[in-house]
Amino acid sequence: MTPPFSDLAGLRALLTELPVPDAAALSAAQVRNAQLTKPAGALGRLEELAMWYASWRGTPRPRLERPQVAIFAGNHGVVARGVSAFPAEVTAQMVGNFEAGGAAVNQLAETFGATMTVHPIALDRPTADFVEGPAMTEAELLEAMAIGWSAVDPVSDLLVAGEMGIGNTCSASAIALALEGGRAQDWTGRGTGVDAPGLARKSEAVAQGAARLGPDPDPIEVLRQLGGREIAAMAGAILAARHHRIPVLLDGFICCSAALVLHRAAPGALDHAVAGHQGAEAGHARLLQALGKAPLLALDLRLGEGSGGVLAIGVLRGALACHSGMASFAEAGVSDG
Amino acid sequence: MTPPFSDLAGLRALLTELPVPDAAALSAAQVRNAQLTKPAGALGRLEELAMWYASWRGTPRPRLERPQVAIFAGNHGVVARGVSAFPAEVTAQMVGNFEAGGAAVNQLAETFGATMTVHPIALDRPTADFVEGPAMTEAELLEAMAIGWSAVDPVSDLLVAGEMGIGNTCSASAIALALEGGRAQDWTGRGTGVDAPGLARKSEAVAQGAARLGPDPDPIEVLRQLGGREIAAMAGAILAARHHRIPVLLDGFICCSAALVLHRAAPGALDHAVAGHQGAEAGHARLLQALGKAPLLALDLRLGEGSGGVLAIGVLRGALACHSGMASFAEAGVSDG
Repeated sequence: MTPPFSDLAGLRALLTELPVPDAAALSAAQVRNAQLTKPAGALGRLEELAMWYASWRGTPRPRLERPQVAIFAGNHGVVARGVSAFPAEVTAQMVGNFEAGGAAVNQLAETFGATMTVHPIALDRPTADFVEGPAMTEAELLEAMAIGWSAVDPVSDLLVAGEMGIGNTCSASAIALALEGGRAQDWTGRGTGVDAPGLARKSEAVAQGAARLGPDPDPIEVLRQLGGREIAAMAGAILAARHHRIPVLLDGFICCSAALVLHRAAPGALDHAVAGHQGAEAGHARLLQALGKAPLLALDLRLGEGSGGVLAIGVLRGALACHSGMASFAEAGVSDG
Repeated sequence: MTPPFSDLAGLRALLTELPVPDAAALSAAQVRNAQLTKPAGALGRLEELAMWYASWRGTPRPRLERPQVAIFAGNHGVVARGVSAFPAEVTAQMVGNFEAGGAAVNQLAETFGATMTVHPIALDRPTADFVEGPAMTEAELLEAMAIGWSAVDPVSDLLVAGEMGIGNTCSASAIALALEGGRAQDWTGRGTGVDAPGLARKSEAVAQGAARLGPDPDPIEVLRQLGGREIAAMAGAILAARHHRIPVLLDGFICCSAALVLHRAAPGALDHAVAGHQGAEAGHARLLQALGKAPLLALDLRLGEGSGGVLAIGVLRGALACHSGMASFAEAGVSDG
């Protein structure tokens, strides 16, 4: 679906008029939750999840039927600085692996009944090295965000946005540092497993890139200056999901860096999103705190690809099955305490 | 299947000759894991889980095809002391709800493709009040454990043992206190939601029951003296799973109190079990520490019924799908770093 913005002014306008959850559906879901055959609150976060989902879908007894995983791939000029354990060719090779069904996220999407699409974006044109100057032009940023927006199927009922891009933890760390402050090393981790000298080069690149922007930079400008095409596309996809009232399960550090841009650009822009997991990449826990999101899972994943978000679909499926399928005390003839 | 013990001596003998995991399958699974298209270790605990499961199933590339949920129910004499928020009749009412498909665990079992059986045990004969004397005779203990053993289908490939029994957190707390020491209040929580005076009565009952047994009691005798029929049945089921090399996902506080008895009776008796979740019931985190198990999930559940164990099936399914379904670097033509 074509995005309803064609320039940065249109994008910014869109961020000021975000859809909100359905208060009547939420209220009806709360009434239902209180009648189900369990002690009050005994399903813990599953109850919260079900009511959150109901409020965004506008129905008090929702089912999850059409979850969608969209994977975006991009290449990064900063890789020339030796900041990754893998060469840039691996981005295209892994896109081939996604298309052939051989990657982790393929297995997880199949396990949890999600459709999956793969969107390589200009892999032969890496972004410019963000240490030297802007990673993308305005046109490149808008093109990548539009690809993300258009990848979202309006009839899906859940989105997980994932990514592949050698060097993209470096870009994500720079975005986080520029928007949240702190020290470069607090936001910089080993990604796919870079060695100590590579980590030092990475941290230095992150520090230099963020320093170029000065204090309190505009979030969309941070995305253009320090982001990658796949990160911009994830931001576009998460925004499109909001437009269509499609709930989102956030994946790891890189996905959350895209989400952070929206969060800082418009407070509440991530109300339709839950953190699928907390990964092992340094900085992810801190990034989730900045987003104000408690993760559903914490299993030391550090893969990206949307893998942690897709794994969390299982938890959401369980929550909705309980909420929408359980008997009430009256229906079951069970004494209500 | 009839249990291979008919008296306590036979049970104790069985605990000295437990099957062990398959070292060759583990080794082959480790080799496979290292070849999959992901950075080394990037799937975190999913990798551990897949290799643990492979070792118990004796195959390097396992699938999960026949998970089984067995729910045991029992009533407790200690309930007469006012230690629960719900009346004892609710145990039988909830058994009816399980049989009719209306409870939370029914929805979760269906969601994660598990068969489910329900085993009410002598609901019209509550155990004796453990504050006054032994909850069960030897014959009653053995009968309950045999029911648990026999409930395990030898051709299943995963077990979740769950329970229902008004008052059974009280029994579980007394077991934990007797075997692990500490203060009664550290092990005693609100269960289904007992009020403050009820919690004080419960804590007092837990303290008195455990005190009757003196220091360093025998674990099987603790189960007889302080347990419930459903707790003894869960211990029998977990032991049967070990006998058949069926991996186990442990549920909450009460399930873990049954597991603790086996753990203290025979070191390593729970090597075929992983903690499905950490619940909100006071004492569960402490109990998992005593078992040396890190939970897969922590979502503030406090329902029992096996619900947290069944929810964790999703994580295990994801782990096995990745391990057994992903392409290798060579198969996918991806550069190995």
